[in-house]
Amino acid sequence: MTALPTDPAANLLRLLRCPSVTPAEGGALDELCAMVEPLGFAVRRPVFCEPGTPDVENLLARRGTGGAHLCFAGHTDVVPPGAEADWRHPPFSGAVEGGEMFGRGAVDMKGGIACFVAAVARLEVAGRLPEGRISLLITGDEEGPAVNGTVKLLDFAEAAGERFDACLVGEPTNPAALGDMIKIGRRGSLSGRLALIGRQGHVAYPHLADNPMRRLAGVLDALHHPPLDGGSEAFQPSNLEVTAVDTGNPATNVVPARVAVAFNVRFNDRWTPEALRAELVRRIEAALGGAPYEIAWRAPVSDVFVTAAGPLTEALSQAVEAVTGRRPDLSTSGGTSDARFIKNHCPVVEFGLVGATMHMANERVALSDLETLTAIYETFVARWFAAQS
Amino acid sequence: MTALPTDPAANLLRLLRCPSVTPAEGGALDELCAMVEPLGFAVRRPVFCEPGTPDVENLLARRGTGGAHLCFAGHTDVVPPGAEADWRHPPFSGAVEGGEMFGRGAVDMKGGIACFVAAVARLEVAGRLPEGRISLLITGDEEGPAVNGTVKLLDFAEAAGERFDACLVGEPTNPAALGDMIKIGRRGSLSGRLALIGRQGHVAYPHLADNPMRRLAGVLDALHHPPLDGGSEAFQPSNLEVTAVDTGNPATNVVPARVAVAFNVRFNDRWTPEALRAELVRRIEAALGGAPYEIAWRAPVSDVFVTAAGPLTEALSQAVEAVTGRRPDLSTSGGTSDARFIKNHCPVVEFGLVGATMHMANERVALSDLETLTAIYETFVARWFAAQS
Ligand SMILES: [Zn+2]
Ligand SMILES: [Zn+2]
Repeated sequence: MTALPTDPAANLLRLLRCPSVTPAEGGALDELCAMVEPLGFAVRRPVFCEPGTPDVENLLARRGTGGAHLCFAGHTDVVPPGAEADWRHPPFSGAVEGGEMFGRGAVDMKGGIACFVAAVARLEVAGRLPEGRISLLITGDEEGPAVNGTVKLLDFAEAAGERFDACLVGEPTNPAALGDMIKIGRRGSLSGRLALIGRQGHVAYPHLADNPMRRLAGVLDALHHPPLDGGSEAFQPSNLEVTAVDTGNPATNVVPARVAVAFNVRFNDRWTPEALRAELVRRIEAALGGAPYEIAWRAPVSDVFVTAAGPLTEALSQAVEAVTGRRPDLSTSGGTSDARFIKNHCPVVEFGLVGATMHMANERVALSDLETLTAIYETFVARWFAAQS
Repeated sequence: MTALPTDPAANLLRLLRCPSVTPAEGGALDELCAMVEPLGFAVRRPVFCEPGTPDVENLLARRGTGGAHLCFAGHTDVVPPGAEADWRHPPFSGAVEGGEMFGRGAVDMKGGIACFVAAVARLEVAGRLPEGRISLLITGDEEGPAVNGTVKLLDFAEAAGERFDACLVGEPTNPAALGDMIKIGRRGSLSGRLALIGRQGHVAYPHLADNPMRRLAGVLDALHHPPLDGGSEAFQPSNLEVTAVDTGNPATNVVPARVAVAFNVRFNDRWTPEALRAELVRRIEAALGGAPYEIAWRAPVSDVFVTAAGPLTEALSQAVEAVTGRRPDLSTSGGTSDARFIKNHCPVVEFGLVGATMHMANERVALSDLETLTAIYETFVARWFAAQS
């Protein structure tokens, strides 16, 4: 009989050696499949396609046929390693030095997957695996366009009759040490591209032209001030950043006909995307005083969400505290994750490794953190199922 | 004996048929040479070169060996015709329709050259050509980088011992009708490129980044307000136009590290380039409050100049009034011209055709305007020489 994958470091090593730079599968889903089939998981490997984007392999695996249904979600694709010379060890080696395992994806988030698989295996070996269903929802398109990944995988699962009662996302959520932070929600994200429109001309004859640059300062002011809100109970204040202003006019003697302003808003639960769009348009029009403009809103819009306190947040908080002795923050800070899609299907929380080195050279994880996270996941699974019965 | 070039329309037709799109000579200087040699002009054809710019042919021709020395300056190169489909007649045909001759360069400024040559030829035929010297200073690099043109041709003339007492530039100076406007000076031109410097980061973590866009509105305000001046006796107010703002950041989730602001100032005689640079730096630093920036000033800087009232402006004004019955404005408005270089050698004024169609599709000149301008130039030459003796 095959040895069960109870060692998170061994599991992670198998995954790290696969160069699954998004959107490549790189062998990572094959390895995961080989790990979880001995645990009784039935694996499906749908490939999703869309014109203009690369085809992506995904994995949906379920163990158990009835009862409460817990989903663990994550991704095996990783961001490119960058210059190999910046790494102390090759980025797909899984080399260990000073008690840390190095590799692209070590914390974001092959490490989280390795620990969850080890947790299930340990429960199985100990004969403590609860009745009910556990599913793995693993995509290869989280770091890429996210078009052929979690969204389609959730639809695929639903079409196959899968209903999840709760979901844990294994993204790295801890800023500095294991136990710092659980994510229970995320701000929304709205991106727009505004064009101020004037009339081209020669700089020596400005009265024959209409320079949209003369309206740019007022528009930037209106976008930035006053603040969108002062935050809410669960969220920090909404924030707008102008990410680009572009004219594309190389001629120093030409008044440009238009200037484009790109911006992104991270918004909290005081706003819907519709209300936010309306407020921004109101500010822009007030600043422009009738001058022409165009605005385009970029897809995808991520809506804000927060998971209410309940059995899911409780089971996870208690598991973290039981293992680490620390009470984690329940936070809604930071960027978006695939949790924004999962929240449409079931309550979702996020907890994983320490994210300090994610997306950087020398991404790495402490072997002791792998053990700790495995213990937390083990405790969480047991408690969550116990709370369902 | 060759017929003398007394007909400005015939002269212009010969020049228009040469596709002398800058920097190509296109046969235009050959034609001009063939026109003026029968009038007794000794022609030199220096070619100027500079690494990184195309070699350009130029023409310097002189008639007469002593006495007062009048220079006529201009260019045979033209801007590209653009899409031929936008033209009613092919842009290098010189086709006549409704009393107008069509072609790229018709008014800017092969037409001015054609009229001046005809004026000299008519004086010659009438036996009224004054004692003294007349030079033609014609470049093929006015519409291009202007590196291998008038500047070097003036140096070449000076090295050859040529000293001009006055210069008439034949650029189109009339906004709507012949007789509207003589140009007696030009504003200066100063271009700069300012970079506001911040620190890159993720839009979801703005406290870890420093978005220079937050300082952009203040800098734009400071560049535009208050006005640089209220104008001067001879000049309209100085004016600054922002010609480009560029970030080059395609990622909607990234706070950019820098943003570049390009601007151009057309400045009057209340400023030196040095004083203007200092004022702009003062405004920028006040707006930035210590935040980092870089600024680069682009070459070439054109200094402001104005030609004092005297025999040159008088002879030209009187000639215009004598022929058209209208007293022309003595103006310093509009863009720069090669007069900015000539003013370092002798007093310079500008008068030519109606510029309404210059640089556009269907550039064209009324045949009657060619006759009128020829008569004005004829009168001017006679009066200017008369005033010298
Ligand atoms: Zn991730
Ligand atoms: Zn011109």
